[in-house]
Amino acid sequence: MTNQSRTPERTIEDLAEVECLRLIAPGGIGRIAFKSRFGLAVLPVNYRLHEGAIVFRTARHSALDEDLQTGIADADYLVAFEIDEIDKAARVGWSVLIQGPAHRVESETERASAVRAGVEPWPAGERELFVQIIPSRVTGRRILSA
Amino acid sequence: MTNQSRTPERTIEDLAEVECLRLIAPGGIGRIAFKSRFGLAVLPVNYRLHEGAIVFRTARHSALDEDLQTGIADADYLVAFEIDEIDKAARVGWSVLIQGPAHRVESETERASAVRAGVEPWPAGERELFVQIIPSRVTGRRILSA
Repeated sequence: MTNQSRTPERTIEDLAEVECLRLIAPGGIGRIAFKSRFGLAVLPVNYRLHEGAIVFRTARHSALDEDLQTGIADADYLVAFEIDEIDKAARVGWSVLIQGPAHRVESETERASAVRAGVEPWPAGERELFVQIIPSRVTGRRILSA
Repeated sequence: MTNQSRTPERTIEDLAEVECLRLIAPGGIGRIAFKSRFGLAVLPVNYRLHEGAIVFRTARHSALDEDLQTGIADADYLVAFEIDEIDKAARVGWSVLIQGPAHRVESETERASAVRAGVEPWPAGERELFVQIIPSRVTGRRILSA
């Protein structure tokens, strides 16, 4: 059996930004990619889309918190956030990539807005830090049967 | 209802490298994070674990292929590769992070080995390039009910 016969026809199509935002609107699990002290890192987090931004919670003083601190007020690191939904059996699905600054929410006003996002972390304990990713670039693609 | 009551006790535990490799051994969907020309990017790919390395296929001259080319022979970019399995209903799961150089397979010997990995890309078309990630660091964690 050749690879070709085992791989039925599939096509990839690029998704428009409005379609990407529609797909990720329900929230759920996404993966944040960032430069950690040990090189590039990727971690799954539970997110919500709130007022156009990705919002998730992490523990203060966690590795993620510390890796996202630039040490400069109002300066944020650029990160990537990926969300996908893939049907392994049917071999179809979509993925969306958000790129933008990861903002550690510090002010009371910002915090009140982030709390309204209603996002919950899964692990117990002190998950006090809200992180917002304001999309500067939104791209996505879909794999479907040809 | 407070956030606390909606978030039953969960704990995070770090996984040993041997446990991480056991979890990712079946292959499936992983996400590669890399520095693209537009900043950090993350893409889902269909991978296999073969002879201790992550192996996946992509199209030659795709954005991913071109972003992984250093232009220097025997020099590879460092990337991150994340695999997870998350039960959204039970709110438990694990994630594994592989960090290491992403090697574009060019020589015939390497290619023969990569082909034996039997990894298939999902989209149709010319998916000629094999990429190997040789782990230099393997970490993982599990979220479980306390």
